[in-house]
Amino acid sequence: MSNEQGTGRFAYDGLERIIHERARLSILTSLASHAKGLPFNDLKSMCSLTDGNLSRHMTALAEAGLVEIEKSEKNNRSLTRCRLTEVGRKRFLNYLAVLESVLSDAQTVSAAVPKEGLAPA
Amino acid sequence: MSNEQGTGRFAYDGLERIIHERARLSILTSLASHAKGLPFNDLKSMCSLTDGNLSRHMTALAEAGLVEIEKSEKNNRSLTRCRLTEVGRKRFLNYLAVLESVLSDAQTVSAAVPKEGLAPA
Repeated sequence: MSNEQGTGRFAYDGLERIIHERARLSILTSLASHAKGLPFNDLKSMCSLTDGNLSRHMTALAEAGLVEIEKSEKNNRSLTRCRLTEVGRKRFLNYLAVLESVLSDAQTVSAAVPKEGLAPA
Repeated sequence: MSNEQGTGRFAYDGLERIIHERARLSILTSLASHAKGLPFNDLKSMCSLTDGNLSRHMTALAEAGLVEIEKSEKNNRSLTRCRLTEVGRKRFLNYLAVLESVLSDAQTVSAAVPKEGLAPA
């Protein structure tokens, strides 16, 4: 067994709050898998968010430098396109690596059947 | 390609708030990998939480039925042991399955290099 009792062994500091919040995790995963970005309305529907919620989260993510919002006009209709920035891509990859370690740490959960014979932790 | 544009495709409803919050995710992962539970102080150190923070989160998790707190006394010293309940184990496993799908959806992130030749999403 490795250093299971270690201080901070399960602290997961890398799960930064700006990314970890569920709606923002949805947004970033959607954008991460669409390299050219997504129109605001498609993103809204994929993440099951309201206009207001998506706007609020996109603003927070843009202020943190993780995404960019591009507004353009076509045939008199305004178009908003959302995209991951390069910084956002890197920080999201770091976040995903920590998420992987959570899953790997938690792998034992299904195997861990309490038995009286086992030594107490 | 599968139904990538689908409504709610990236909504991840299963990431329930009570589990997803980072400190609580730490606590549950620690407990999940220690079938017989953990003394309060060990858990505190593994999750890098303060007394107050751990207490607060444990109370919330216990109220949701996900963990149980057992107090005993030994040689005049009180001992608090924290443990995942069976309900907690099941709900945590469901949560982990959704987390797996986030990771699998995000796999494309590293591969997804923007190229002008690609069709816009």
